[in-house]
Amino acid sequence: MRKALAIDVGGTKIYNTIVNENGEIISKIEKYPTSKNYDEIISTFKTIIEKYEKEVDVIAFSTCGAVNNDNNKILGSTGNIAKEYPTTDFQALSNKPVFVENDANCAAWAEYEIGASKGFQHSVMLTLGTGVGGGIIVDGTLLKGKNGAAGEMHFKMRTDKYRKCTCGSWDCFEIYCSGTGLKLTGEEISGNKNITTYNIIDGWKNGDKLMSSIHERWQNDIAYGLIGLANLFDPDVIVLSGSMAEFVDTDYLTEFVNKELVTTPTKVVKATAGNYSGMIGAALLAFRKGF
Amino acid sequence: MRKALAIDVGGTKIYNTIVNENGEIISKIEKYPTSKNYDEIISTFKTIIEKYEKEVDVIAFSTCGAVNNDNNKILGSTGNIAKEYPTTDFQALSNKPVFVENDANCAAWAEYEIGASKGFQHSVMLTLGTGVGGGIIVDGTLLKGKNGAAGEMHFKMRTDKYRKCTCGSWDCFEIYCSGTGLKLTGEEISGNKNITTYNIIDGWKNGDKLMSSIHERWQNDIAYGLIGLANLFDPDVIVLSGSMAEFVDTDYLTEFVNKELVTTPTKVVKATAGNYSGMIGAALLAFRKGF
Repeated sequence: MRKALAIDVGGTKIYNTIVNENGEIISKIEKYPTSKNYDEIISTFKTIIEKYEKEVDVIAFSTCGAVNNDNNKILGSTGNIAKEYPTTDFQALSNKPVFVENDANCAAWAEYEIGASKGFQHSVMLTLGTGVGGGIIVDGTLLKGKNGAAGEMHFKMRTDKYRKCTCGSWDCFEIYCSGTGLKLTGEEISGNKNITTYNIIDGWKNGDKLMSSIHERWQNDIAYGLIGLANLFDPDVIVLSGSMAEFVDTDYLTEFVNKELVTTPTKVVKATAGNYSGMIGAALLAFRKGF
Repeated sequence: MRKALAIDVGGTKIYNTIVNENGEIISKIEKYPTSKNYDEIISTFKTIIEKYEKEVDVIAFSTCGAVNNDNNKILGSTGNIAKEYPTTDFQALSNKPVFVENDANCAAWAEYEIGASKGFQHSVMLTLGTGVGGGIIVDGTLLKGKNGAAGEMHFKMRTDKYRKCTCGSWDCFEIYCSGTGLKLTGEEISGNKNITTYNIIDGWKNGDKLMSSIHERWQNDIAYGLIGLANLFDPDVIVLSGSMAEFVDTDYLTEFVNKELVTTPTKVVKATAGNYSGMIGAALLAFRKGF
């Protein structure tokens, strides 16, 4: 059975492990900080690869940033990481084949092969964290678009330039429905600039009225976005993953979305492929693509 | 060369002609009213089919309403047409193979094979008319979703239940960016309930300040919607068709959209496959699918 050295590159941490063709993690999970310095990032990659490349058939990166259709290059800048990172020549890092894919796409693929969207040919996956990532599967194939950048959850929730998004534009789904979005909604409703995501979630859990109303607004914004996605993709299932997915009620969202659809009923569910779905998906995609 | 009897079923008119494998119209265009009475609609279909079925290899319907993935059945009700219409057993209408597809999907396919998106594997097509239709092509394949209903342009432009959409939900792209949407935006900005789409377009063309500001708001709403679509699909091209597409500036939209994208630059263009692109696309899709 083939094995991949899977490496997950996030804005703050780099993880690695080994994944087999069944999507099983068969080695320990290791963790490094993501340096702001490009050379240090590359040096971390080299350390990991030198240590494990002999044991595996392919190196599979799950990374922040959009990845091209040849799965060997990052397209454009990626916010929270060294500016030079998109110039990385991934294949130059190893003599083994190197495969690269966007982390949300990898997570969506893991859900499709071993997780919550297994058995479904049409799915939309959203990672709700500090930001929002997206991975869309159409007829059993990852939606990549002309250059590989598809699946970005930057569609507008309003059009009057109300809330600036991290992407530079205004009022995207991400800036309402991420953890950051929850905090901003909390600031607006409470009038308290120092409110934290933790305050809101904790208050909501304890039945605090104000905090519950903030949570409700945030969750309804998620529902509004999902309605649009369901009308565009007519998916079997919408999978929510990421740290903030813990705080949504998928039954509520399913009912809300289905009540307002013009397409056919869908189901909102939580991800089940686990915290390392990025690495698992990167490995499984690399195998699938014959790397 | 194979030939299709192409029939376009709209809310008010039914057209028919014959289309060959090159997408050429090789017979005269005939026109019937779309009755509100189901039996009369079926009777019109029978009249057309009896007249031409011996001359062709396949009957290809381009119709309002979402169509299933087997291309033989309409899913759910379709607004402006007899309630029983979705129950139509299309194959029962002829001994020749009968193929059915949604009209916006057909138009998108005509653009892909012989029109403005020819040569591009990733495109989004919008028909801007009384309503808004959508047809999305991903990697040279029509996006249909789990049941065939994908590509509906009902994603939200705001989330505060401001403008009721024809679909029953609120604030969809369609109710801002269609001809109906232009009139409603005109009513809001001018305070005149009797304003017509014609008044606005005519005033805008003649440089009237108020009418131009209404047109600008409408066109910017289109741009805001296209930004979301471009971020989701990373398309080579976004094609605008329909009667209202005449009144948009595609260079302005291209620049506006590309300035705010997180994916890679795209191009907004007008459709070129002509007024009968629905029938042409239905025929070409039927051939492509081996009907």
